[in-house]
Amino acid sequence: MREVAIIGIGQTPVEEHWDKSLRDLAGEAIFKALNDAGRKNIEGLYVGNMMSGMLSKQENLGALIADWVGFKGIEAAKVEAACGSGAAALRMGLMAVGSGLLDCVGVVGVEKMTDGLPNETTAALATASDADYEAAQGVSFVAINALVMRRYMYEYGWKHADFAPFSINAHANAVHNPNARLQEAITEKDYLIARMVADPINLLDASPTGDGAAAVVLVPTETIRNNKKPVIKIIGSGSATDSVAVHARHEPTWLFAAEKSALKAYSQAGLGPQDIDLFEVHDAFSIMSVLSLEACGYAARGQGPRLGLDGEITLHGRIPITTMGGLKARGHPVGATGIYQIVEVIQQLRGEAGENQIDGVKIGMAQNIGGSGSAIITHILKAT
Amino acid sequence: MREVAIIGIGQTPVEEHWDKSLRDLAGEAIFKALNDAGRKNIEGLYVGNMMSGMLSKQENLGALIADWVGFKGIEAAKVEAACGSGAAALRMGLMAVGSGLLDCVGVVGVEKMTDGLPNETTAALATASDADYEAAQGVSFVAINALVMRRYMYEYGWKHADFAPFSINAHANAVHNPNARLQEAITEKDYLIARMVADPINLLDASPTGDGAAAVVLVPTETIRNNKKPVIKIIGSGSATDSVAVHARHEPTWLFAAEKSALKAYSQAGLGPQDIDLFEVHDAFSIMSVLSLEACGYAARGQGPRLGLDGEITLHGRIPITTMGGLKARGHPVGATGIYQIVEVIQQLRGEAGENQIDGVKIGMAQNIGGSGSAIITHILKAT
Repeated sequence: MREVAIIGIGQTPVEEHWDKSLRDLAGEAIFKALNDAGRKNIEGLYVGNMMSGMLSKQENLGALIADWVGFKGIEAAKVEAACGSGAAALRMGLMAVGSGLLDCVGVVGVEKMTDGLPNETTAALATASDADYEAAQGVSFVAINALVMRRYMYEYGWKHADFAPFSINAHANAVHNPNARLQEAITEKDYLIARMVADPINLLDASPTGDGAAAVVLVPTETIRNNKKPVIKIIGSGSATDSVAVHARHEPTWLFAAEKSALKAYSQAGLGPQDIDLFEVHDAFSIMSVLSLEACGYAARGQGPRLGLDGEITLHGRIPITTMGGLKARGHPVGATGIYQIVEVIQQLRGEAGENQIDGVKIGMAQNIGGSGSAIITHILKAT
Repeated sequence: MREVAIIGIGQTPVEEHWDKSLRDLAGEAIFKALNDAGRKNIEGLYVGNMMSGMLSKQENLGALIADWVGFKGIEAAKVEAACGSGAAALRMGLMAVGSGLLDCVGVVGVEKMTDGLPNETTAALATASDADYEAAQGVSFVAINALVMRRYMYEYGWKHADFAPFSINAHANAVHNPNARLQEAITEKDYLIARMVADPINLLDASPTGDGAAAVVLVPTETIRNNKKPVIKIIGSGSATDSVAVHARHEPTWLFAAEKSALKAYSQAGLGPQDIDLFEVHDAFSIMSVLSLEACGYAARGQGPRLGLDGEITLHGRIPITTMGGLKARGHPVGATGIYQIVEVIQQLRGEAGENQIDGVKIGMAQNIGGSGSAIITHILKAT
């Protein structure tokens, strides 16, 4: 396969964009990415999105957005893998360019979640779980994750307060990210007294929904000439799945698909966890950060919270995570999140992360998780 | 890119499968395809589906079905391009294998449309049109196609009866297809007196919805050894889009994306329309058969109905279409249709089409259309 590089990035702020439609948001991110890339055309467009049909009564997003941004006629499709839709669409773009079929591709993640009533959004999110064996029992998506967190605390003896550093770190990093939904620092006390959503997940364990779009432009590395900005290569990509129903998994507190997708990405890149300078984890809930770090080799099983308590996850720690605020504070427009993560890794690798810039970073990883761990895609990027 | 071949096919009957869920149907088609291929494993699974979130409250179909068929851990995702979702998923499989990333991939199209109330299905189908500029005006998906047909009849002077041969041919071919929803022949009189749905589209111009799944297994041609059945190679693949809103197109009666995707496929295959032995068109409505045949080079602009009137589209004609019943009579479970078309082309190329077998066919084409012509994918297959 041809080596593929990302030469353009774009994002909208994550907000309640009541004045912008799905196509407005996607278009804004795509135009920013094209401008950043210094390109005027793309040959294909892959759209990461989960819930446009349910919440905006709009499917067929590929053609809709391709036309809206002025590229009528190009190849386009939507890719869905629940909250992992963004990275799943990126992987399709990678295959399109890597295979040699297309030479310049746009990938956009877009989601619009705040127009409907809250119960509509909750119902749409529940479609990421098993409709027949989970959702039909009345369990919401947050509640499923709460069961996992409760079990994890029981098995390994952690207290709820031990998860505080993940939320505090994400919020601290969002303060300087103009695209973050919650640009506000929180204290441990805030975390401890936050109102409960689904015990033990409280409001500061859970990422906020939001409207937003993020986009990237992909080309074969071999075709890049005199690029103004550092070229960022995709050196590892792995996608893996697990049972959608958490109760059907052998170990509900272990992210089998995260481990498998990370191992594929590490293997392709010829690297291991120790080689990664920063890691955008999928912290939809604080327990997910912990499980993702363990599955990717940063902590022993059951010891993930230690990384937070020891300060290893901050911008100055051993493995900085959620460096621009993560899902927790940047916000989680579900189908867009996987591309926001990629854009943020690239901001760091290019030295464009502003106040949050980590010195000397060369290799970054992003892991996008769909459906409480059932569809997981890991990408490793390298600056050259 | 590596050359890719299809070594296994499977399908369920198109029916009202009230006793089978989405995963049951998809699993049935996948197991049949694996059995047909003589394979026990796949490394990736791409699911073509449009409306599972809206009608079955289930997204995340990739992981769900991968687990259900016993391949927990493999890569999986859902691909959506309205009624073109099936062929869009096939194209993703083609890129996955062609790029060298995966060596054996399953592609399944699945849709379950008959469990809900008819108005729910109509609303779900309308998400293939432009939610803000078409559906919001109250126009249904059938009505949009009726506007196109009305305009076409006005521009080129055709009467409604001139479209009868397309429906009669599809129904005649479905009689011998055990997987077809409507295994019944119709007469010209039946066509003329059928009740109106959206003038000028009557019940026998419109394809029926249905539940069903169809699947294929893809491998690199170079890895095939001693295959028991004829190896079917994908020699052409093209995907293109157009404005979703029909009123935004320069020429509402010309399928720009069909022409563009067919030209890409012809070019890749090094062939032209005269080299195709049979053509599975996307006859969601009879007007779509006409427009597809014109766009792909089988009739001059405005002259498509002539092919029906002259008997050119039958099993013994110059360009046989809908050889197993087409969408009109096999049925149109929307996200599955694109794979049913591929399976049927392969039945013909292998000589497994039973009573409908066309003698000496070597090269077949399938064109899958999403959203009244806004997302169109064309594949050309060749028996070796």
